[in-house]
Amino acid sequence: MDRQPINLAEKLSRFSDQWAPKTIARMNDYHFKLVKLQGDFVWHDHPDTDEVFIVLDGAMTIYFRDGDVPLRAGEMFVIPRGVEHKTSAEAECRAMLVETAGTVNTGDVVSERTAPVETWI
Amino acid sequence: MDRQPINLAEKLSRFSDQWAPKTIARMNDYHFKLVKLQGDFVWHDHPDTDEVFIVLDGAMTIYFRDGDVPLRAGEMFVIPRGVEHKTSAEAECRAMLVETAGTVNTGDVVSERTAPVETWI
Repeated sequence: MDRQPINLAEKLSRFSDQWAPKTIARMNDYHFKLVKLQGDFVWHDHPDTDEVFIVLDGAMTIYFRDGDVPLRAGEMFVIPRGVEHKTSAEAECRAMLVETAGTVNTGDVVSERTAPVETWI
Repeated sequence: MDRQPINLAEKLSRFSDQWAPKTIARMNDYHFKLVKLQGDFVWHDHPDTDEVFIVLDGAMTIYFRDGDVPLRAGEMFVIPRGVEHKTSAEAECRAMLVETAGTVNTGDVVSERTAPVETWI
């Protein structure tokens, strides 16, 4: 067993590409990922899993077809499975994602935003 | 769907009892919980699930039979299923736990530290 604490700031310093989640930990069949967001993502949903966003730094908005949820550092939200959503951030926002291992960031939608499913840092 | 962001500081302000995890969110079959720790917990393990600690404020140590992991705010650790451990904090530490819904805080050990499995705040 690795005895190293996982330091979120140190992990965030290891990458600069936006919209490309990096996996930092596995818990059972789930991955914890860090992501840097700026601008608008694409509308999509995840039919088979809820998805958690925890904002670490900055602010972002999760848009739904019938409303939106603004999030800032120290806030989190659970996006229910199957619910179409789009994330957006004016300035770069850093967030932690928790979701089933193997979840594609754009769900069933293929876009230029579609990132590799599992990139460990 | 509830459109309210979950604010961690606001949720932490809602309770003061230590070693009694409070559930703040559900993702599929998993719970996100907040806990305040001070002093020593009991040795125990969780045979069926990994357990994640994310330190929000303060510092704590996770002791294992063959070593220990110090954690401070902004750091996290995954305790593998079935591995005996004990948490400890000199001053009050605030942490987020992620684990399977229904996980008992003291695992198979019954102690004065055993807390209700699911208390939502």
